[in-house]
Amino acid sequence: MAHNDYFSSRRTIRKYSDHAVSHELIDELLLKASHAPTTGNMQLYSVIAAWSVEDKRQLSPAHFGQPQVENAAVVLTFCADFHRFSRWCEERDAEPCYDNLQSFMAATLDTIAFAQQFNTLAEQAGLGVCWLGTTTYNAQEIASALNMPPLVVPIITLTVGYPAEDGVDVGRLPLEAIRHEGKYCDYSGQRINELYAEKEARADSRMFVKENGKHTLAQVFTDVRYPRANNEAFSEKFISYLQSSGFMPKTL
Amino acid sequence: MAHNDYFSSRRTIRKYSDHAVSHELIDELLLKASHAPTTGNMQLYSVIAAWSVEDKRQLSPAHFGQPQVENAAVVLTFCADFHRFSRWCEERDAEPCYDNLQSFMAATLDTIAFAQQFNTLAEQAGLGVCWLGTTTYNAQEIASALNMPPLVVPIITLTVGYPAEDGVDVGRLPLEAIRHEGKYCDYSGQRINELYAEKEARADSRMFVKENGKHTLAQVFTDVRYPRANNEAFSEKFISYLQSSGFMPKTL
Repeated sequence: MAHNDYFSSRRTIRKYSDHAVSHELIDELLLKASHAPTTGNMQLYSVIAAWSVEDKRQLSPAHFGQPQVENAAVVLTFCADFHRFSRWCEERDAEPCYDNLQSFMAATLDTIAFAQQFNTLAEQAGLGVCWLGTTTYNAQEIASALNMPPLVVPIITLTVGYPAEDGVDVGRLPLEAIRHEGKYCDYSGQRINELYAEKEARADSRMFVKENGKHTLAQVFTDVRYPRANNEAFSEKFISYLQSSGFMPKTL
Repeated sequence: MAHNDYFSSRRTIRKYSDHAVSHELIDELLLKASHAPTTGNMQLYSVIAAWSVEDKRQLSPAHFGQPQVENAAVVLTFCADFHRFSRWCEERDAEPCYDNLQSFMAATLDTIAFAQQFNTLAEQAGLGVCWLGTTTYNAQEIASALNMPPLVVPIITLTVGYPAEDGVDVGRLPLEAIRHEGKYCDYSGQRINELYAEKEARADSRMFVKENGKHTLAQVFTDVRYPRANNEAFSEKFISYLQSSGFMPKTL
């Protein structure tokens, strides 16, 4: 399993060279990735490829101007899509019934599995990839810019190009932090100390704390990177958008 | 890229041999899979491994008694988990603020990418895997059975073992069905006909229509496999559970 070494050493790439990426390569990788598991073989996703300077620039504000959007060879917006399937139903004397949250979950599952499989294939083909979690923050703006109809929701965006950097090994928690045997085993304070010790001891973590004027690494997350005000404002926005997309009821 | 042939030919495996799967192998694959992309390197997931007959049997009803649950060597329940991260915050003088839907989306993204990466590694190691989309239908029951605290939500279950069948090539839509250039291009009736023609012409599709006494393949989905009454009932249930888990507001 020599090629499996790739899995442990893969890294996010945010800087891309000018080396051209061919449409044919991306198409080949997307087609292969579409063999990832999918709910009832419905393939409840679409991917929208932005290649031109104009198309990439149009997406940039929704991703808060992160430079990898305009610098990538191609920006791929992966969407949960029950619209195409519903259109097929309409054309086949069948009444589609996918304007609900379970259908959104199924489509989200399909979309992310597809995106992850594409990511693996792209990285194994020598490309560098960065995932933009900002996609659900500004899903409405992205959907408008890309002409998405109801029952289509952008879930994750991947910027893709040949790497112009090595990327950084940011490490991961030990397996014991994430794997439970039989039942979920809750975390004592002592256990948290053990599981996060290596992460907190890293030089980059300590620099992160210092640069942000905080006392703990966790405070960098709660106060700076993912603070309550942002989480709540973007959640409200996303719920409104899911309602207008048809996947979420108007009232609970 | 010879090993990439795997990607196009992978299949769901529902029947498993008695050949033992080692805990060490699953741990090795899970650890490698944890290098999949994750939001802010927070690893917002947990996986709960059921190995014993009792643990697998306990999960069976939530998956409607599908036989692969009890027949698998191991059943892995992948959960969106903001609890562990929040526990870490609490232990580090930081106030966690992840009881909202964006946090659920970030954790869902991390969880599915991790599960998909595990799936790829497991299949490349010779294991067979089946994904159980029933996980979100009965998330509440699974969470109770596995002692999950708030901010932990089961998203997808994988049954895993050495294959005792070849699996079936169920085919996929042509790339043109799922990939859009620049903007989302809506589907005309004529386009739907073209894109679904191959799928509808398959012998297994035609048999499916006949066995279910329907006129079109789409009707098998809307009337039998994913009917409105089920979709809506399980959506209501899932929304209630997300509310009790803390990820969804009590009212909209």
